[in-house]
Amino acid sequence: MGQIPRFLSWRNMLVLSLAINFSLILKILKGDRERGDSWDRTAYVSIWPVVSTTASESSSLSSASCNYSKIEEDDDRIINLKFGDPTVYERYWQENGEVTTMVIPGWQSLSYFSDENNLCWFLEPELAKEIVRVHKVVGNAVTQDRFIVVGTGSTQLYQAALYALSPHDDSGPINVVSAAPYYSTYPLITDCLKSGLYRWGGDAKTYKEDGPYIELVTSPNNPDGFLRESVVNSTEGILIHDLAYYWPQYTPITSPADHDVMLFTASKSTGHAGIRIGWALVKDRETARKMIEYIELNTIGVSKDSQLRVAKVLKVVSDSCENVTGKSFFDHSYDAMYERWKLLKQAAKDTKRFSVPDFVSQRCNFFGRVFEPQPAFAWFKCEEGIVDCEKFLREEKKILTKSGKYFGDELSNVRISMLDRDTNFNIFLHRITSSFNSTL
Amino acid sequence: MGQIPRFLSWRNMLVLSLAINFSLILKILKGDRERGDSWDRTAYVSIWPVVSTTASESSSLSSASCNYSKIEEDDDRIINLKFGDPTVYERYWQENGEVTTMVIPGWQSLSYFSDENNLCWFLEPELAKEIVRVHKVVGNAVTQDRFIVVGTGSTQLYQAALYALSPHDDSGPINVVSAAPYYSTYPLITDCLKSGLYRWGGDAKTYKEDGPYIELVTSPNNPDGFLRESVVNSTEGILIHDLAYYWPQYTPITSPADHDVMLFTASKSTGHAGIRIGWALVKDRETARKMIEYIELNTIGVSKDSQLRVAKVLKVVSDSCENVTGKSFFDHSYDAMYERWKLLKQAAKDTKRFSVPDFVSQRCNFFGRVFEPQPAFAWFKCEEGIVDCEKFLREEKKILTKSGKYFGDELSNVRISMLDRDTNFNIFLHRITSSFNSTL
Repeated sequence: MGQIPRFLSWRNMLVLSLAINFSLILKILKGDRERGDSWDRTAYVSIWPVVSTTASESSSLSSASCNYSKIEEDDDRIINLKFGDPTVYERYWQENGEVTTMVIPGWQSLSYFSDENNLCWFLEPELAKEIVRVHKVVGNAVTQDRFIVVGTGSTQLYQAALYALSPHDDSGPINVVSAAPYYSTYPLITDCLKSGLYRWGGDAKTYKEDGPYIELVTSPNNPDGFLRESVVNSTEGILIHDLAYYWPQYTPITSPADHDVMLFTASKSTGHAGIRIGWALVKDRETARKMIEYIELNTIGVSKDSQLRVAKVLKVVSDSCENVTGKSFFDHSYDAMYERWKLLKQAAKDTKRFSVPDFVSQRCNFFGRVFEPQPAFAWFKCEEGIVDCEKFLREEKKILTKSGKYFGDELSNVRISMLDRDTNFNIFLHRITSSFNSTL
Repeated sequence: MGQIPRFLSWRNMLVLSLAINFSLILKILKGDRERGDSWDRTAYVSIWPVVSTTASESSSLSSASCNYSKIEEDDDRIINLKFGDPTVYERYWQENGEVTTMVIPGWQSLSYFSDENNLCWFLEPELAKEIVRVHKVVGNAVTQDRFIVVGTGSTQLYQAALYALSPHDDSGPINVVSAAPYYSTYPLITDCLKSGLYRWGGDAKTYKEDGPYIELVTSPNNPDGFLRESVVNSTEGILIHDLAYYWPQYTPITSPADHDVMLFTASKSTGHAGIRIGWALVKDRETARKMIEYIELNTIGVSKDSQLRVAKVLKVVSDSCENVTGKSFFDHSYDAMYERWKLLKQAAKDTKRFSVPDFVSQRCNFFGRVFEPQPAFAWFKCEEGIVDCEKFLREEKKILTKSGKYFGDELSNVRISMLDRDTNFNIFLHRITSSFNSTL
């Protein structure tokens, strides 16, 4: 008994000392901000933006003179905008991500099982809770009476949905179609194992075969950013809705999506692509059960740590929306996309040598205002005689993009990521404006 | 300039304060150990073992009287030993896992890319380093001149290897075979998508077809624990070696494995199944490239957080082996498996109503001593008239196991996990001894 007071006093001292630490850290951070410096910024110096991207701030790029052509750059550097690597979000999480920090003890994640009472036994309950919450906060999907299936990114969930929705009898592979331009990886994933369950059936707009088929509806669409509905005129279609980009930084949220199988991913909603977490909202129990069966066979569930991290990230996103004192995650990311699209559209207008799609404004229920879509990718068209836009940008401008041919469309189109770091986006803008001006 | 000394003094105070924290934590931990208590143990009380499992300690179960039949238990509780959920390792990581704690900031894992200069662009360099190190420390695999491919568990890597090693021309699916009893999930994974690249070809021991085939060699084998080599007598075989259990807690390490494609997993080496990380050591560059291609298509890489966690866990394991002051991870886990196998073999001898395999002792280069294999699963055979062992254990004893029929073997065999928590293992032992004694 005699040891208890001594033992408690050590505890108390630790608590006191930790409190002092905390106040010292705050003091130092405050000092850094006041001096316009950051003592740990050096660790991220290579990825910090050259200029501000917030719509509300007046940056060198957004000024009336459009002086992005004056950006200094290394002309030999290859700028890769081929992939949708969502590094544009790094700055937000660096500035606001302290609350998202996770501490994982060594004894976590030994068991395969997350929730033995759930049909999806590998789904972490905390993630399920935060998925339901964020959809409620944003208003972009119905979650009531839906089964949640977690996957290693929405790519795995797409395959799980194909496995679940294809007939497993001897009727042969079912056709999987999507309206061109469609996400270039869909045909590759669908056909890579020469499955006897399903096969790529091409452009949904020209699909005329009888019998059951699966139609993929990506809305907003990758690569072109338009909102979509199914296009095959038949009653025998089974639909998969890929809603990876149905978030308010990309498009007005007009109503909660309400489809049989809806796919979402952390990669494009919060920008955490490297965590590899996606989720499906599924109406039918048997479909959900078969999707889970596929994920069991494919990877015996999904990383628990990754699920818990995404749960925390989603919580911070929802908190930022419900806490009216500061800018929410979606305010920040909307502003970043708004700024980029404004600059790109201005550059298209100035040079007249390329175009980007025209979008219709709609009212967004989340933001409570009307705006145009500002997609994660620009569906960029070279004008006036440039037949192969990808080749032109690669060879002449050292900008890597993805050719329209991979999306079932023309060579004069390319897909360009709008989600890269500011430095790369700025160099891209500089090159496409100065080059068009100087070479032609 | 005037602010710098003040600013530095805050830093200095923080360092001082952190040092005080550290010493306080050490003091508290020391106090806990001295009192034989753990102030945060209550959080894990439900999963702490009933009895000790270390071979060196005298536990109630390992005493000469074999009084495991006196374990008190809830007779209605179903004990599930169907899966290889490696929760036996929880205790080690609870007791020794503080150094394995990870802190992940909110801005980590935004990009898809881990190492753009590596053929396996989604492999975290830190994980690659620790994989090479742990194999060198244990001496169980050659890593020199090998490509490392990381996967979402070794299950995904098995599929990646099938994709990489199957002909992609029109020659039709290649047969995949393995000697029975084989891992029950192999046939299911192989055939689940009715691939045109590969198909399950059954028991390698009876395989006689001409032409190329893939042979899976699991060594030590799941379910029976024996060391294995390829059995098909042909020069046209392509081999995949699943070495998930080739670690010194399960079997003597006689030499570093040196095969074309070798699969390993964190699940069975360190027990972190829920992190879902496996790795392949691959000799041929083109095979590695195609395996990486499959993982790109299947899940666009592998969770970065999970990789970094496994890197840390492997580092702690290697450190524990190289630091001679305490018991290493493998000392601990060897002792746990040794104790369980001693009890199970004793029970088989006492009751004579079931048997487990007899193994040959070999010298282990890692431990520098001779011992018998003590596998992760017991290949348990019901004797004397019990035809369906799985049904008998399920219906009569409320113990769930996996029937031999799923492994291409007889109904009189079942696979039983030796990796569950102590409580479950002890109840299992109690039921199979008391029940056999009382009912017959």
